Amino acid sequence: MSLKNDMHDLVETIRPIIWRDDALQLLDQRRLPTQTEYITLTTVASVADAIRDMVVRGAPAIGITAAYGIVIAAQQRYADSASNWKEKIQQDFDLLAAARPTAVNLFWAITQMKGLIDQLEGDPVKLLLAAARQIHDDDIRANKTMGELGAGFIQAGSGVLTHCNAGALATGGYGTALGVIRSAWQHDKLSNVYAGETRPWLQGARLTAWELLQDHIPVTLVAEGAVSALMGKGGVQWLVVGSDRIAANGDVANKVGTLAAAVQAKYHGIKVMVVAPTSTIDMSIADGASIPIEHRGSDELLQLSGHRMAAEGALAWNPVFDVTPAKLIDVIVTEKGVIEAPDSVKIACLMRC
Amino acid sequence: MSLKNDMHDLVETIRPIIWRDDALQLLDQRRLPTQTEYITLTTVASVADAIRDMVVRGAPAIGITAAYGIVIAAQQRYADSASNWKEKIQQDFDLLAAARPTAVNLFWAITQMKGLIDQLEGDPVKLLLAAARQIHDDDIRANKTMGELGAGFIQAGSGVLTHCNAGALATGGYGTALGVIRSAWQHDKLSNVYAGETRPWLQGARLTAWELLQDHIPVTLVAEGAVSALMGKGGVQWLVVGSDRIAANGDVANKVGTLAAAVQAKYHGIKVMVVAPTSTIDMSIADGASIPIEHRGSDELLQLSGHRMAAEGALAWNPVFDVTPAKLIDVIVTEKGVIEAPDSVKIACLMRC
Repeated sequence: MSLKNDMHDLVETIRPIIWRDDALQLLDQRRLPTQTEYITLTTVASVADAIRDMVVRGAPAIGITAAYGIVIAAQQRYADSASNWKEKIQQDFDLLAAARPTAVNLFWAITQMKGLIDQLEGDPVKLLLAAARQIHDDDIRANKTMGELGAGFIQAGSGVLTHCNAGALATGGYGTALGVIRSAWQHDKLSNVYAGETRPWLQGARLTAWELLQDHIPVTLVAEGAVSALMGKGGVQWLVVGSDRIAANGDVANKVGTLAAAVQAKYHGIKVMVVAPTSTIDMSIADGASIPIEHRGSDELLQLSGHRMAAEGALAWNPVFDVTPAKLIDVIVTEKGVIEAPDSVKIACLMRC
Repeated sequence: MSLKNDMHDLVETIRPIIWRDDALQLLDQRRLPTQTEYITLTTVASVADAIRDMVVRGAPAIGITAAYGIVIAAQQRYADSASNWKEKIQQDFDLLAAARPTAVNLFWAITQMKGLIDQLEGDPVKLLLAAARQIHDDDIRANKTMGELGAGFIQAGSGVLTHCNAGALATGGYGTALGVIRSAWQHDKLSNVYAGETRPWLQGARLTAWELLQDHIPVTLVAEGAVSALMGKGGVQWLVVGSDRIAANGDVANKVGTLAAAVQAKYHGIKVMVVAPTSTIDMSIADGASIPIEHRGSDELLQLSGHRMAAEGALAWNPVFDVTPAKLIDVIVTEKGVIEAPDSVKIACLMRC
């Protein structure tokens, strides 16, 4: 077996979300890369907390987590009362939906599970667990499809830059943007993989670097401020990122810094690829201006590792997502196919397939 | 006396470089803002170390520091041998010049002091100290002139964004980019002052925020990745930065992230101002491609506060400056006057004045 096949097997082992013994286990992403520790959740409130506190993050991963959260909720609500559990569980939907505002996959997964609950009768747990597992498995399968589709655009010898973590850790497994990078790497197409460190939470430094190195893919970190200099020296041919929500016109919400990187990419003549399953496309939102953008606490910027870093009295503006307009995007890769130079017509067509 | 006059007096008290009792005292910028501590230097080797290790940083400040370093060197060389000290001191020039490569003010100050040494006879210390003090005082005066000139471009009610620290701490006092911000603030022109946190060394979070708050100027930090989103929402009218070296055609080397911010500024229709004394203009370099760019150790990115943050095995690319082409710059402000839409002809004309 070649190194690359070994690598591929190893990829399978990075699983941020595991259902085992009637409970949800999440790899605590706040502690990576120094500690690899799973926490076990048995209540819907703890699942909502884990999403809010970023034990798990990444749009597809929080969708899958919410689906399992609904299994836990149904287990408890049905045990409490087999007659009115469907009424009571509505507040659990609301609790999960309120955990984070930007990634639409969260609402998508809740809607999927809710639709199933409306139809079923009797003990719901077995069917709901099967549905959550299906969402989880479908996501991994979609990532592998997208990996191949996206890698097809990348010429041999290319350097790629990614931002944040759109990898196995952000999904059910394999990853969206990192799925493309994994596939391109397997096809021997990549000369260099660069990762933006992604302030303030350092998803690039802490998660993407760890994840790629688990698969023996060499990775070089850059500060966001150095992205333009890196592109200017010609080492990067593609910017490859994930997404938390895509509007009907192709505008893309993703981790803050994505717009900045895409603007640099256009300036330096570098291509921009967005990789996301169709569950990330929100046809109810006409354009990016209407996507709700989460702002998090200023301590993420004012402190480092729990120590005050900025001067006392300094304020901080900490939006954690931004919106990249469709016109800056060369290709959106989904599990249903790719859209070059995305616009409303092409996206509507893909979604009808 | 109004609050603003009090503020102006307070500005005078931020002095990163002090000559006292035959020794050089530097405010240790590695420890700000949590500790305000001066270290005392009495050898030229310790002065070179302080520049290299960033006890003092900022192009004008390291020029001034080198000038005082030469006073210390001359003191010792002349005491060692009144006959051949001028020969021996050449190695001290080399030692200081090798401390950091990008900021041209370092070489400018050495050249100034060297020219004086060539001319003088007898005990050099008194004259050299007077010359170093003159360089120091001239810098502060230049900053105040540039502050007024730059503030003249800023409309009332503007938001400004700065990057890194081009303030009192980076100069003899008052600052270049922060000098403009101080002057504009005194003229009641600013609605908001934003500072990029400036990875990896966090000059924005640690130094600029501290410095502005000492003067009661409210400041809001943003991650470099959030700069594009901030500009997109309309809160910023001017990007105001310093420079480490300006080529003869107006290309500007400055802290890495400046090019990124300038590219965003052009995309969002925001004006770009570079504030630097003429000692920063290097007429021997035709364009930015020839400016030497310092790269620092990867631990600046891989560690946080001395703790490993990135995955073991991750590499880092850590250039600490980048080059912004003249075409992205609306105005260069110097102590001799301003240059709008800079080019070789206008810069040559200013330098001949």
